[in-house]
Amino acid sequence: MTAIRHLLQNVLGHIAFSLRWLIYIVPMAAVVGSACAFFLWGLEQVTHWRFEHPWLLYFLPLAGVAVGLLYHYYGRSAEGGNNLIMDQIHEPGGGVPRRMAPLVLFGTLVTHLFGGSAGREGTAVQMGGSIASAFCRWYRLDASSVRILLMAGIAAGFGAVFGTPLAGAVFALEVLMIGRIEYEALLPAFIAAVAGDWTCHAWGIGHTHYHIDFLASNAAPSAFFHLDPKLLLKVVVASAAFGMASTAFSELSHRLSALFKRLVPYGPWRPAVGGLVVIGLFFLVGTSDYLGLGVSSPDPRAVTIVSFFQSPEIHYWSWFWKIIFTAVTLSAGFKGGEVTPLFYIGAALGNALAGIMGAPTDLFAALGFVAIFAGASNTPLACTLMGVELFGATHVIYIATACFLAYLFSGHSGIYLSQRIAVPKT
Amino acid sequence: MTAIRHLLQNVLGHIAFSLRWLIYIVPMAAVVGSACAFFLWGLEQVTHWRFEHPWLLYFLPLAGVAVGLLYHYYGRSAEGGNNLIMDQIHEPGGGVPRRMAPLVLFGTLVTHLFGGSAGREGTAVQMGGSIASAFCRWYRLDASSVRILLMAGIAAGFGAVFGTPLAGAVFALEVLMIGRIEYEALLPAFIAAVAGDWTCHAWGIGHTHYHIDFLASNAAPSAFFHLDPKLLLKVVVASAAFGMASTAFSELSHRLSALFKRLVPYGPWRPAVGGLVVIGLFFLVGTSDYLGLGVSSPDPRAVTIVSFFQSPEIHYWSWFWKIIFTAVTLSAGFKGGEVTPLFYIGAALGNALAGIMGAPTDLFAALGFVAIFAGASNTPLACTLMGVELFGATHVIYIATACFLAYLFSGHSGIYLSQRIAVPKT
Repeated sequence: MTAIRHLLQNVLGHIAFSLRWLIYIVPMAAVVGSACAFFLWGLEQVTHWRFEHPWLLYFLPLAGVAVGLLYHYYGRSAEGGNNLIMDQIHEPGGGVPRRMAPLVLFGTLVTHLFGGSAGREGTAVQMGGSIASAFCRWYRLDASSVRILLMAGIAAGFGAVFGTPLAGAVFALEVLMIGRIEYEALLPAFIAAVAGDWTCHAWGIGHTHYHIDFLASNAAPSAFFHLDPKLLLKVVVASAAFGMASTAFSELSHRLSALFKRLVPYGPWRPAVGGLVVIGLFFLVGTSDYLGLGVSSPDPRAVTIVSFFQSPEIHYWSWFWKIIFTAVTLSAGFKGGEVTPLFYIGAALGNALAGIMGAPTDLFAALGFVAIFAGASNTPLACTLMGVELFGATHVIYIATACFLAYLFSGHSGIYLSQRIAVPKT
Repeated sequence: MTAIRHLLQNVLGHIAFSLRWLIYIVPMAAVVGSACAFFLWGLEQVTHWRFEHPWLLYFLPLAGVAVGLLYHYYGRSAEGGNNLIMDQIHEPGGGVPRRMAPLVLFGTLVTHLFGGSAGREGTAVQMGGSIASAFCRWYRLDASSVRILLMAGIAAGFGAVFGTPLAGAVFALEVLMIGRIEYEALLPAFIAAVAGDWTCHAWGIGHTHYHIDFLASNAAPSAFFHLDPKLLLKVVVASAAFGMASTAFSELSHRLSALFKRLVPYGPWRPAVGGLVVIGLFFLVGTSDYLGLGVSSPDPRAVTIVSFFQSPEIHYWSWFWKIIFTAVTLSAGFKGGEVTPLFYIGAALGNALAGIMGAPTDLFAALGFVAIFAGASNTPLACTLMGVELFGATHVIYIATACFLAYLFSGHSGIYLSQRIAVPKT
């Protein structure tokens, strides 16, 4: 009898725990998901305008000054971006300011309208963290619940903006520390990511579909599937390269950031200089392919993430140029995020390596897509799950190989400076 | 220049790290994979013999005494089983005895030949741990490398016996502590699991294929897929039930174990008593469906894991009986493992709940299959990945929902007593 009463108490406790977080999180995630839907819609609009009016690029320096001044006068701690949110999870303190959400949304749309090479995840995560922090104040939560709600905010933003809720949930737990995941917020983050993604879909926002034709008929992998040793070896070599590219990107970004700060002490001028450099780079390479998000383009000859999957053509240096364009754009103070450019860099490097080694380009584009991000953000499990959510389960062993090795080879560098090292990699 | 030299040093360090573990692990994993191949082949033989000679069941008590005497006189610390391996990872000390591998292999085959209701993972994990420990002594590794090699041994055994290498690798990291994963052994465990699985395949051993017809044409989930809210609600309710069934199984096993020890102080008699109880239960329910592994049967009317996926018939109480049969068999001292019976219990409960709530039986059988194990072993991520490896990516959000909620609802109880609580669940 005592055992049954004990069991019943436990079950009621778990139901209460789940319901409490459901009630706290669903409204927050719905707001974050709606913000992401609006952001993705806006991003499509401004990207479309830029394709129609290529001369907008020449105003990138001016637009940069506007964003710079905005952050200079109104930004306060919002300038801290993703790192501020991570700091507030490690040590809850002043919270994440509400203004972060509109500022980063506006800043990112401006960056993309005028052709800066940037991404989306920074914006989504910052909107998620800022909105979650506002809900925390409204709910008057204690410090440990604030931590959980902030992680849930990251999960909601990430899950909604990429349409990968499981990866979003695991990302929010995995990104805080290198080498360790803790499950404190497992269920809250998952609820938030699913609710955020769902809300975003409910607004009619879809996501780009990537397709791997290589062995496309296999639905469940391990049961049907014997690894091809030669292909596995190629994947291993490519994965080490993905990890090194992650390090190259992270280190270049941090060094350029420091350089910009030294050369241009007054913040608002930095994006102006950065914008001029991007324009110079544009004339140097003679293509607009490395501007903006890079996911797709109305021009069928453009080199985009989608084209790395679909076109048989090999592009050997696209990854290099996208690293340069993105590092300059973001280090100069433009807004957005690193992740979509990292997807581009990864898919491009995968495409190039497939060409060199004679491997399926669509598979290698997919592996680079998730692996470079795994290396740069130090989140190998989230990226493996993202690979499954985006590309299906057929190649899950190759995907995990790529993400785990890129994680190892990227060392302890990464794009998030507030990430802590819990368990060293070697 | 310094930066490039630094980068090069890092890369060489990572290559050295990877090669070192590759050289240590591949031979070990090949031996573990071969042992698992032999074990799976033997299991098929003895199961086949039992189907042909049902009267073998009457010798279960006698076979139990033989296994009991063997462990009593020759077992020494091998009796500790999975828990001993986990203890040796937490605090490397005397190591895992070599004798554990042949003893558990023999004990499990005898258990299955005479109709005990048991599984395979205990055997695979114990062979993995025992063989890995032998390699550690041979290599003369230090304590921290011993930890890693033991985890790799678990990963190799688990990956090979179920044909799910990614789940095997994550399982080995996740099972040690409730609520925390550390990445110390991420790459070594993954190498071991892939090599173990590969070796097992190379011996010509295949695995049962499960198939979910529900929405079978969707290959990559999130991109194409909008959750069905009504179905999600049903999954949530079922998942809570899966978690409670995990607790019921774990608690019943621990209590029966204690009861057997109190009532039958002399170890070797316990399986005799347990064997008699199993025979009694067999007459009580009037079917041999709950004996042995339960994966499949030559009798098309038999209720098996495969039939829960394929047959439209609903079985409302199979899960209950399989819990009883298995808890009695294993608590009495028979060998094998809990996992395949847990797959059975989960698929059966999923089947029953699908019948009650009007949901797709194959999907719910799959969810129960992985979720009850997630709850009983406290490994929600490994089980989510196992679901992807076995059933494909289409239902990954439902699979994660089931595993995460079953993990929560199973509380802090579990089948592994040496598991430590790192982060409490609520």
